Amino acid sequence: MTTKDGRPFDRASLDYLMRRRLFYTPSFEIYGGVSGLYDYGPPGASLQANIIDVWRKHFVREEDMLEVDCAILTPHEVLMTSGHVDQFSDWLCKDLQTGEIFRADHLVEEVLKSRLESNLESRGHQNEGEIEKEKKRKRTKTARLNDDVVQEYQEILAKIDNYNGEELGLLMKKHDVRNPVTGGELLPPVPFNLMFQTSIGPSSNAPGYLRPETAQGQFLNFQKLLDFNNETMPFASASIGKSFRNEIAPKSGLLRVREFLMAEIEHFVDPEGGKKHHRFNEVKHIELDLLTRDVQLAGKSRVQPMSVGRAVEAEIIDNETLGYFLARIQLFLETIGVDKKKLRFRQHMRNEMAHYATDCWDAELLTSYGWVECVGCADRSAYDLSVHAKRTGAPLVVREPRKEPLRIEEWHVDLDRKIFGPKFKKDGKVVEDTIKALTQDTLKKLLIELKKEGKITIDVNGIGSGKVQLDKDLINIEKRTRLEHRREYIPNVIEPSFGIGRILYALIEHNFWVRPENESRYVISFPPIVAPTKLLIVPISTQDWWAPTVRRLSNKLRSLGISSRVDYSATSIGRRYARNDELGTPFGLTIDFQSLKDNTFTLRDRDTMRQVRASEEEICEAVRNLTEGTETWQDVAIRLPAFERQDVD
Amino acid sequence: MTTKDGRPFDRASLDYLMRRRLFYTPSFEIYGGVSGLYDYGPPGASLQANIIDVWRKHFVREEDMLEVDCAILTPHEVLMTSGHVDQFSDWLCKDLQTGEIFRADHLVEEVLKSRLESNLESRGHQNEGEIEKEKKRKRTKTARLNDDVVQEYQEILAKIDNYNGEELGLLMKKHDVRNPVTGGELLPPVPFNLMFQTSIGPSSNAPGYLRPETAQGQFLNFQKLLDFNNETMPFASASIGKSFRNEIAPKSGLLRVREFLMAEIEHFVDPEGGKKHHRFNEVKHIELDLLTRDVQLAGKSRVQPMSVGRAVEAEIIDNETLGYFLARIQLFLETIGVDKKKLRFRQHMRNEMAHYATDCWDAELLTSYGWVECVGCADRSAYDLSVHAKRTGAPLVVREPRKEPLRIEEWHVDLDRKIFGPKFKKDGKVVEDTIKALTQDTLKKLLIELKKEGKITIDVNGIGSGKVQLDKDLINIEKRTRLEHRREYIPNVIEPSFGIGRILYALIEHNFWVRPENESRYVISFPPIVAPTKLLIVPISTQDWWAPTVRRLSNKLRSLGISSRVDYSATSIGRRYARNDELGTPFGLTIDFQSLKDNTFTLRDRDTMRQVRASEEEICEAVRNLTEGTETWQDVAIRLPAFERQDVD
Repeated sequence: MTTKDGRPFDRASLDYLMRRRLFYTPSFEIYGGVSGLYDYGPPGASLQANIIDVWRKHFVREEDMLEVDCAILTPHEVLMTSGHVDQFSDWLCKDLQTGEIFRADHLVEEVLKSRLESNLESRGHQNEGEIEKEKKRKRTKTARLNDDVVQEYQEILAKIDNYNGEELGLLMKKHDVRNPVTGGELLPPVPFNLMFQTSIGPSSNAPGYLRPETAQGQFLNFQKLLDFNNETMPFASASIGKSFRNEIAPKSGLLRVREFLMAEIEHFVDPEGGKKHHRFNEVKHIELDLLTRDVQLAGKSRVQPMSVGRAVEAEIIDNETLGYFLARIQLFLETIGVDKKKLRFRQHMRNEMAHYATDCWDAELLTSYGWVECVGCADRSAYDLSVHAKRTGAPLVVREPRKEPLRIEEWHVDLDRKIFGPKFKKDGKVVEDTIKALTQDTLKKLLIELKKEGKITIDVNGIGSGKVQLDKDLINIEKRTRLEHRREYIPNVIEPSFGIGRILYALIEHNFWVRPENESRYVISFPPIVAPTKLLIVPISTQDWWAPTVRRLSNKLRSLGISSRVDYSATSIGRRYARNDELGTPFGLTIDFQSLKDNTFTLRDRDTMRQVRASEEEICEAVRNLTEGTETWQDVAIRLPAFERQDVD
Repeated sequence: MTTKDGRPFDRASLDYLMRRRLFYTPSFEIYGGVSGLYDYGPPGASLQANIIDVWRKHFVREEDMLEVDCAILTPHEVLMTSGHVDQFSDWLCKDLQTGEIFRADHLVEEVLKSRLESNLESRGHQNEGEIEKEKKRKRTKTARLNDDVVQEYQEILAKIDNYNGEELGLLMKKHDVRNPVTGGELLPPVPFNLMFQTSIGPSSNAPGYLRPETAQGQFLNFQKLLDFNNETMPFASASIGKSFRNEIAPKSGLLRVREFLMAEIEHFVDPEGGKKHHRFNEVKHIELDLLTRDVQLAGKSRVQPMSVGRAVEAEIIDNETLGYFLARIQLFLETIGVDKKKLRFRQHMRNEMAHYATDCWDAELLTSYGWVECVGCADRSAYDLSVHAKRTGAPLVVREPRKEPLRIEEWHVDLDRKIFGPKFKKDGKVVEDTIKALTQDTLKKLLIELKKEGKITIDVNGIGSGKVQLDKDLINIEKRTRLEHRREYIPNVIEPSFGIGRILYALIEHNFWVRPENESRYVISFPPIVAPTKLLIVPISTQDWWAPTVRRLSNKLRSLGISSRVDYSATSIGRRYARNDELGTPFGLTIDFQSLKDNTFTLRDRDTMRQVRASEEEICEAVRNLTEGTETWQDVAIRLPAFERQDVD
């Protein structure tokens, strides 16, 4: 991977910067840490808050979504119904000798990948003499694979997300996958549920879990939300909050953690009428890089750039609402500063989706760890509302008046009660219930029999012979027309689901670079809208006499809604700016002796290191425009006089 | 309790409104609910987000606090060290017959209170004939208590927070406290730890808890935060996040829940120099209603209004930093709309505080459930940093250069190695270590002996006789002066800790009232700064032709940073406004036929129901001023022409 300016990306430098500048740090580090848990320090926490702020404006405010905040603790029964208790598992295998535990799919992936790399290295030696080659092979422990094995490995890796435990076990056996460090044998994969379990209340008979997603709380409140929305469809609910997954062996820093911030939207839509979206027109021209199911099936990973409008038209994306949200997701990611060239939308394979899902796309961001799923956007159909309604009896449905009443033709049964009652006596009720439960198809057939024979015979459980004969003077079957004035349906759900921590990490990678003129000077070029701090105020020296000016400027900027920090530390201005380049602070304002005389200040741009100098009024206005995005640095640099002195190191 | 306009407060009406308007609702209600868990619906979630927003500006931004976001999942060892595993418990008693579980202190409180009430009722019948009185007593099950019993009960109730399990057990026995419903006997109180336990990772040997407070994460990161702050003291960290307590029997709605949002500040301060605060001057004039320890000890609850400056001077509040934060807490609560007359600061009793705390005050808000602790403000001394440092060996300390080096005079020992070595041989090391470990006082005494006797004798464990004689040619003791250039200390922590859910609930109660002219019209008078929605846009009818105007206005208001909602529903304007009075929406903007002609609009004030009419420009400006707090409705009503038509119901 390369940085924005086309130079090689160096993850070690970034990791070091993240720790040094306290973007995030392993939780409980002085106790040895717990893998998969991280604390955000001040710049990370601020970046996260700013991303959330943009998200809320971009999605919730823009479309009047109903934001809710639901409980994290969730009773067993809810997650039993949703399927999480039985199915929300990964496969783990244990090494009995060392006690180590591996996640089966990751292990297979890791082992096969390393064999393929080793094979490549081995082939790389082809031009050397045979003896020399052999030596190298031994030294680097490389091993050459046959072509058919290479192909088999590649096919397995392409489908690695789709194997169940049994299949993974077979693969491990067939390809002799072992503990990569000790070479020890592993037990076959067993399922491990990823939910953290606990017990709610003082008695131990109320098991519960930490929610693995925020979605369920939104589904359970559907009826109340519909009511709050004045019974108007479609509408969306939204929620921002922590979710938890007890990962088997978390690695990859912020990309695979046990506790994470999610932002989820549940857009409830009428399943009839093609799931249109009334604002689809506004986005249909937007081009997305699509990695479709068909391309993946062909074993390829070439993206197709395509407008959303075209993709929906061609039925590549299932419906307008799904397409609308894919486009909105891309706009959001661009707004916060994701590199569009490192964004693609990957469609789920059929066997990769939950069985109820109609279509599902992941917004994937390219990082030094590869392509990472950062936003999922699934059509969950009516699954969740249906299972909860069925389990609880709650009416999670929409009832709405039909504009035109629906004419329904159906077969109808009349019984002559004067004959029926005396004939069946105490059996009357069960016979009548059985007749009422007959399907339309059966009734149609029975009518033919009745007309032909003058009587019909039906099976009735629980009475004498189990059969009952009905004569035509007792029963009448005929077709009637009924008008249905109200319609009842279970809405479908389109769910854009954002992993904020992953987005945050990818965003940092996309904006990290090194100044070509000085390899030790790192910069993170966050757009002002998400930058942890918008402006650094730098008095040229540490003396007290700057304090009144600093205070006046801070207050003024705060009243303009701009968060600034003051750096009074006793290092050179150059060093202070360098530190803030690493923190991603886009602008710097220097107060020097001249400032005290004529109330002019220097404003510095992080990315270009160019400076302008102007009056307090002009500088504050420029900062406001730059942070609100109504002006770029180029605009400002043309408008205001340049200040030529370089940073003093 | 009364509402702001002095009329009786009706909790049943408010509860009904909260549910109807989806401020909050029991979590998992369609599954029967789980006590102590609530979901916030759209108005509640928005109110919560706005309170947090004000909090962040008021505390974090205002003082450049270092906001962090730490893990909720916490390993056992951390909470063992902090004392939570052993001590974070309530006392529960079980009814063996029914299986019911009671929280012991709450049960004693409830039973004694109801006996006192019953006693009052009984005495209320004093003026009636004896027979009539006796009849009533039986009918209402009231029971008269002797005066000394009444006094004893009152004393117990005043100290109810301070009993341990054994004491509660004795009280229950002495006063025959039983299951209030069945009259059944209860088992003696046993401790119940309030933390939710779980297991982190795939092996079951990594027990963990959901954090009971956000503080520990901040303490563990102290060294990194100090470094981030360029080693400058004092500074504060802050965190907003969920915490969890497995309450035994949660009641009282949002006031006692199992999962709650906290906002906590840890202000780290040098324990030397009286814990001054450099901005104390800005707040010292602020008057607080103080309920001091002394007044409570005298069995009273009369508050003393007093300026913070005076209270610190009189040593009622322990130090400036604590006083500064109490004042800032009051300012915050006033900003979001808490009724100042329903706010008091109660000092903890000595035995109520954690043993390490120096002083602790609770900001209590009066609600229909009584006075409720909503913000705690404690001086936790150096306790937390000390225990974690001791357990882990991490240096959670400040090291700073002294301005003036510290001159330290101390007794110093020199040994003549040429004599010492040959004399003690293999015992040399243990003898030398023993000499090195002698205290300054001992050295002082030994010098006198050495001068007098020409030799000294010291005890040395582990060598022959256990005693060693040292002659004056071998040892020399003299006073020397040493300069210490660096100072090392463990900071003290002042901790303002906010229960956001409790504040939110009290805020709702404080702002709820009923229109005197119509008992079924409820209003919640949130200040605009926290109101879930700032402005309701109301087209006079549901036809489509309003859409372009509505869209233009919404966009314009959004660009001014004002959140608005449109109500297109097919009910009268009066009803739509009534609904939004219940939601606490401060302003309403009506679009009528006149608006389409001359682009003028009506703006309505929720509290007075008065309306003004002006041009789009003027109305938008007024709305911005009103929501930003630069103008009041009174100002606007004077400036813009009144619109006299009443709400149409």
